[in-house]
Amino acid sequence: MAIPHPIGWTSTSNVRLLDQTLLPHEERYLELDTPELVAEAIRVLRVRGAPLIGIAAAMGVSLAARENGNSGETPLARVEAACRLIRATRPTAVNLMWAVDRMWRSAEALARSGADLHSGLVEEADRIWQEDRAMCDRIGEAGLAVLGDNATVATHCNAGALATGGIGTALAPMYKAHEAGRRVQVVASETRPLLQGARLTAWELTQCGIPCTLITDGMAASRLRRGDVDCVIVGADRIAANGDVANKIGTYALALAAQAHGVPFYVAAPRTTFDFDTPNGDAIPIEERTDEEVRGFGGQRTSPELVSIWNPAFDVTPARLIAGYITDAGLLTVDRLGQLRS
Amino acid sequence: MAIPHPIGWTSTSNVRLLDQTLLPHEERYLELDTPELVAEAIRVLRVRGAPLIGIAAAMGVSLAARENGNSGETPLARVEAACRLIRATRPTAVNLMWAVDRMWRSAEALARSGADLHSGLVEEADRIWQEDRAMCDRIGEAGLAVLGDNATVATHCNAGALATGGIGTALAPMYKAHEAGRRVQVVASETRPLLQGARLTAWELTQCGIPCTLITDGMAASRLRRGDVDCVIVGADRIAANGDVANKIGTYALALAAQAHGVPFYVAAPRTTFDFDTPNGDAIPIEERTDEEVRGFGGQRTSPELVSIWNPAFDVTPARLIAGYITDAGLLTVDRLGQLRS
Repeated sequence: MAIPHPIGWTSTSNVRLLDQTLLPHEERYLELDTPELVAEAIRVLRVRGAPLIGIAAAMGVSLAARENGNSGETPLARVEAACRLIRATRPTAVNLMWAVDRMWRSAEALARSGADLHSGLVEEADRIWQEDRAMCDRIGEAGLAVLGDNATVATHCNAGALATGGIGTALAPMYKAHEAGRRVQVVASETRPLLQGARLTAWELTQCGIPCTLITDGMAASRLRRGDVDCVIVGADRIAANGDVANKIGTYALALAAQAHGVPFYVAAPRTTFDFDTPNGDAIPIEERTDEEVRGFGGQRTSPELVSIWNPAFDVTPARLIAGYITDAGLLTVDRLGQLRS
Repeated sequence: MAIPHPIGWTSTSNVRLLDQTLLPHEERYLELDTPELVAEAIRVLRVRGAPLIGIAAAMGVSLAARENGNSGETPLARVEAACRLIRATRPTAVNLMWAVDRMWRSAEALARSGADLHSGLVEEADRIWQEDRAMCDRIGEAGLAVLGDNATVATHCNAGALATGGIGTALAPMYKAHEAGRRVQVVASETRPLLQGARLTAWELTQCGIPCTLITDGMAASRLRRGDVDCVIVGADRIAANGDVANKIGTYALALAAQAHGVPFYVAAPRTTFDFDTPNGDAIPIEERTDEEVRGFGGQRTSPELVSIWNPAFDVTPARLIAGYITDAGLLTVDRLGQLRS
């Protein structure tokens, strides 16, 4: 059993994606050959997790440079349209914007230099992927410091291998500890409405032999009260300049419970998740998703017709609840985040 | 559209129960004619909610006095066996114990006096039901004091008409406000794993025309942060002598969120839910239920085989997080609970 790889290239430079909407029942890989298909995969969460969305977005942009169906459009114009399309899929994840912007700058530079646009963009997307993989490794190493032997770590949603190009962000310390032969176990909250904790985190951890206990989101506070959870580590979709963190809905409740029980609450994220142009959490746009996600599950309705739904995809955890940021530049407290500014 | 009635007698003194496991899709009433069927209905949550469980238990005990299949057993012995059977169905709900004990005392008195055991027990169960209905009304009136006009109230699980013999406990103030022509709306958390919020609370409120917004359990903290929820009102399965409250899992997280945002958190319960023999929350036995409830959703598996499950049905909210107790003896603060001692 090994850590799953949710993204890759095919031999013909198409994008190979694990369809995460089918987990844990089916491990099906899709081959995508247009930016439109990649945009759709991002929009319906076949690929999710801020870092992995960035990688998929970059790979998706590269596909536009090869397309030649739309006669009359220059390859650069097609790339620009693909950037616009992919950029609009999910408003909260800053890695998406970052990756698309980087691909566009690369495309402009390639066009200016007269180099081959497609192979240049494939290389750039590949660099984004390999950098992410290396970032995950560094996050894992930085996070080892917060895990004692036989640590029990609570997490929420999925910020694991399935959310990145490598071993994850929030789960990276657990993979590093496991790899080093240290005992580690995880308490995963299921993460309604889309159950990324149950479907993805529980799946990838148990695939690798890391013991995992699944709870519903409402049980986390009670579990922390029991006193057998050593720390909480979650990922992030965007981190504002003041250290406020946007992450999957339910994260904030977990942070409040951690505070109530003196359990240190860490956020693991690569520096690309930090957005120093956004001053604080209130300035982070929060995506609201379709009612149907809350009305039921897996196509099954569980609520009456007449009820209204509120379905924000993310919440904001204020910096004061966060013990530290586990980054590819090491374990940082909020007052040291400035050093991540590029 | 009117408030639903989840329990009643048939013309032949059988028990008529709304099968709540089928809501909101189907409104099916069962006719139960043995204590065994009532015990099964309690165990699998066809009937649920602490007060309603007490009423169903009492009605179920009365059925034993009529049975005559087991020749050789006296009616009183059959009633004693029914009390034992029904008492063992759910360990946390104190109303269940209270109702069964009361039925047993009544049975002993009836036997001593030589009165008809069956009709006497039917009358006693009926008194328990009518008392509960009156208690709900008094709770509703006491709770009106905490609701301004156009109040938005958050609740968890279902402590409504479907949990009692009347208009509920936590939802009673909203029904009274609605009845009085005041605007009131409810934010209901879905309450995983069994979705009583989505299936039951959202159903009974919208049946009566009270606007209801459904959220997942992990969204409640974020919703309270928005500032448009005026108070939280939940029910209780058992309240210890010091005011600690056992209620559906997820209640404690909601109380922590309410505290973080200065939203008053109320517990509505009849005096039968108060257990002065239990000193505090740590002494309340917490039922752990089957893994399958958390492993999936509506019969659909959503987690991998190898994951472990933790599934406590209740959690404990400490008294210090509770602004007041909305009881049939009025709105009480924790230091005034002593007046409920019988």
